[in-house]
Amino acid sequence: MDETGLYLRDMRAEAPLIHNITNFVAMNIMANVLLAAGASPAMVHAREEAAEFAALARALTVNIGTIDPAWAEAMLDCAGVMADLGRPWVFDPVGVGATRFRQDLSVRLLDLRPTVVRGNASEILALAGLGGGGRGVDAGDSVAAAETAARALALRTGSVVAVSGPVDFVTDGSRALRVANGHALMPKVTALGCSLNGVIAAFCVGHPAPEATAAALAFYGLAGEVAGQGAQGPGSFQVAFLDALHALTPEAVSAGAKVTVA
Amino acid sequence: MDETGLYLRDMRAEAPLIHNITNFVAMNIMANVLLAAGASPAMVHAREEAAEFAALARALTVNIGTIDPAWAEAMLDCAGVMADLGRPWVFDPVGVGATRFRQDLSVRLLDLRPTVVRGNASEILALAGLGGGGRGVDAGDSVAAAETAARALALRTGSVVAVSGPVDFVTDGSRALRVANGHALMPKVTALGCSLNGVIAAFCVGHPAPEATAAALAFYGLAGEVAGQGAQGPGSFQVAFLDALHALTPEAVSAGAKVTVA
Amino acid sequence: MDETGLYLRDMRAEAPLIHNITNFVAMNIMANVLLAAGASPAMVHAREEAAEFAALARALTVNIGTIDPAWAEAMLDCAGVMADLGRPWVFDPVGVGATRFRQDLSVRLLDLRPTVVRGNASEILALAGLGGGGRGVDAGDSVAAAETAARALALRTGSVVAVSGPVDFVTDGSRALRVANGHALMPKVTALGCSLNGVIAAFCVGHPAPEATAAALAFYGLAGEVAGQGAQGPGSFQVAFLDALHALTPEAVSAGAKVTVA
Repeated sequence: MDETGLYLRDMRAEAPLIHNITNFVAMNIMANVLLAAGASPAMVHAREEAAEFAALARALTVNIGTIDPAWAEAMLDCAGVMADLGRPWVFDPVGVGATRFRQDLSVRLLDLRPTVVRGNASEILALAGLGGGGRGVDAGDSVAAAETAARALALRTGSVVAVSGPVDFVTDGSRALRVANGHALMPKVTALGCSLNGVIAAFCVGHPAPEATAAALAFYGLAGEVAGQGAQGPGSFQVAFLDALHALTPEAVSAGAKVTVA
Repeated sequence: MDETGLYLRDMRAEAPLIHNITNFVAMNIMANVLLAAGASPAMVHAREEAAEFAALARALTVNIGTIDPAWAEAMLDCAGVMADLGRPWVFDPVGVGATRFRQDLSVRLLDLRPTVVRGNASEILALAGLGGGGRGVDAGDSVAAAETAARALALRTGSVVAVSGPVDFVTDGSRALRVANGHALMPKVTALGCSLNGVIAAFCVGHPAPEATAAALAFYGLAGEVAGQGAQGPGSFQVAFLDALHALTPEAVSAGAKVTVA
Repeated sequence: MDETGLYLRDMRAEAPLIHNITNFVAMNIMANVLLAAGASPAMVHAREEAAEFAALARALTVNIGTIDPAWAEAMLDCAGVMADLGRPWVFDPVGVGATRFRQDLSVRLLDLRPTVVRGNASEILALAGLGGGGRGVDAGDSVAAAETAARALALRTGSVVAVSGPVDFVTDGSRALRVANGHALMPKVTALGCSLNGVIAAFCVGHPAPEATAAALAFYGLAGEVAGQGAQGPGSFQVAFLDALHALTPEAVSAGAKVTVA
């Protein structure tokens, strides 16, 4: 079996507890995605307990989609815990180009050296300080245009940077991988990108981040391909996607993964 | 083609960014409804950034279902931005009859002249100062009983007022339209009314509010009719409803719309 | 007809307004569960209005899954209202073993004598002060191990205590019931346990809590059994589960309930 499926097998064997401080739109579907994939999700955000909880988790995800100042501080607390403990954490800079508040928080989060930064092309460009303002959460720029920015951001921060798009791009600044799995209906279901952060975090537990990230993207995109076979639209696609995350075997993932060196 | 479908066609051609400050129950389904229909949703509520974000959006929706004082201030900020910029914004006075806090906030929001006010009969009656207390978010009063209140409210505020029910009623105070599309399972799926606000806002971008609102109601109700054909209950109805929002063509909407002058 | 179905029949006849202060992950699915089952859900949490709203509701549920200090105070306010009015309220101590903040709040909520406390084995053990720390929201301990703790907790608090698991256990400290309905996919859909709290609360309106709780568990588990017959995975299971909650008749519930005296 090629490596991709092994990451899924290992993740399911441990069912790691993944702590998520994410946006309100994503919370339910993200928890369902993680359960279907085989991980154990938890959402905890109050500063009175978030850092204490983070220390119990194997990995953390931080998503700034619907931040406010109190949540921002909890994100920083928890990211600091994970950085101190050497555990993986994933940062999703949703809509970072849209407001100054997001930009300021993102700078502070980047200082805590996320294991993985995942966003669309506009977000990665904005984060790297190279792009113009995106419009909200859409990907107004192509993945290709963001590749240079992704490499520079990875070198500067020490993070693995993943750019989501029709073909995903993953880099640690020197090496790079492309993942060609996915389906056109995925952007038509809200928060599937946000939910992916949790799967990346779960795959990174105990594994090298660039390969684990690419494996998570391949597994996720492959579930999209399976779901797309019978879907009538975004409603039935979402249902079939959760079923596929649950049903896919490590062997099927290894056979279907389209990961190549960039 | 009759006008109803043209509103859908225009909306999809632009895929307008719709900023929503809505309740926690509605957020995920509302984003999925807007994506399926063809718009671009975003949810942003922190006062530190909400007004800045609103200025990037083509339209705004405000829903007081799960308000707290901080969110209330952000709603007022953003509604003020839209009023100043002359962009459409939709106000949904969820459960306004239930508490004094909701009534006070609703008065302040009405002062900012929403483009459209949409609610059930009890909510519109409470808002117009004519009705008794509703019990939470249910429609304890009939649409017919609310029509006089709706006309008065529209005249007083300058808003288009839409009363949701088995047959919807839309008025700007002088003219009025009825929309007879819909399905009996729609009230059995939570937040479909809340999600409709976003579709109304998207249809109002660049179009006159009374006609755009009626067209949005017809499109939405027609998707319900399509979904109801194969649904086994509220679970499968919701799935089919998202598929139908995505699949309906402008031509099908024009053919199936049941909009009449009241 | 045996009693179990009668609880469902009575609940649907009244469609009681159930006030829920629950976690962000659960809100949408919980509202859909309550609508499908035949109750009227509402989510209200701001301290400026929550107690006023609680007084309009027939029952309350409190769930500490994603608490913060402001929500905690609203929970205490509303639980106090229900205790004063003699109306049922259900407490779900999600992840109580994980942090000190949850433990302190849970002690204060228990002082307000919940009608029903529902949790998994780890949570009930932690709450009774007998168990070690759970890891987040998982059930690391068996239901059997929690039975002694449940009886002690019930005697100490005066609450009915329900332990969820493959076979549920319900006790008021002296008597006890077991409910053997359910399906293996239920823990693979997020927040189905949280949503169950609302159904328990709705069944408790006007009925004795131990029997009503067992009836709610049987109805809920039976819907899971129906859903499991055609489900391809957790996505299609959730859809079919909502359909089944809506379609199950009181007669079918009485025929399929597996409630026994422990």
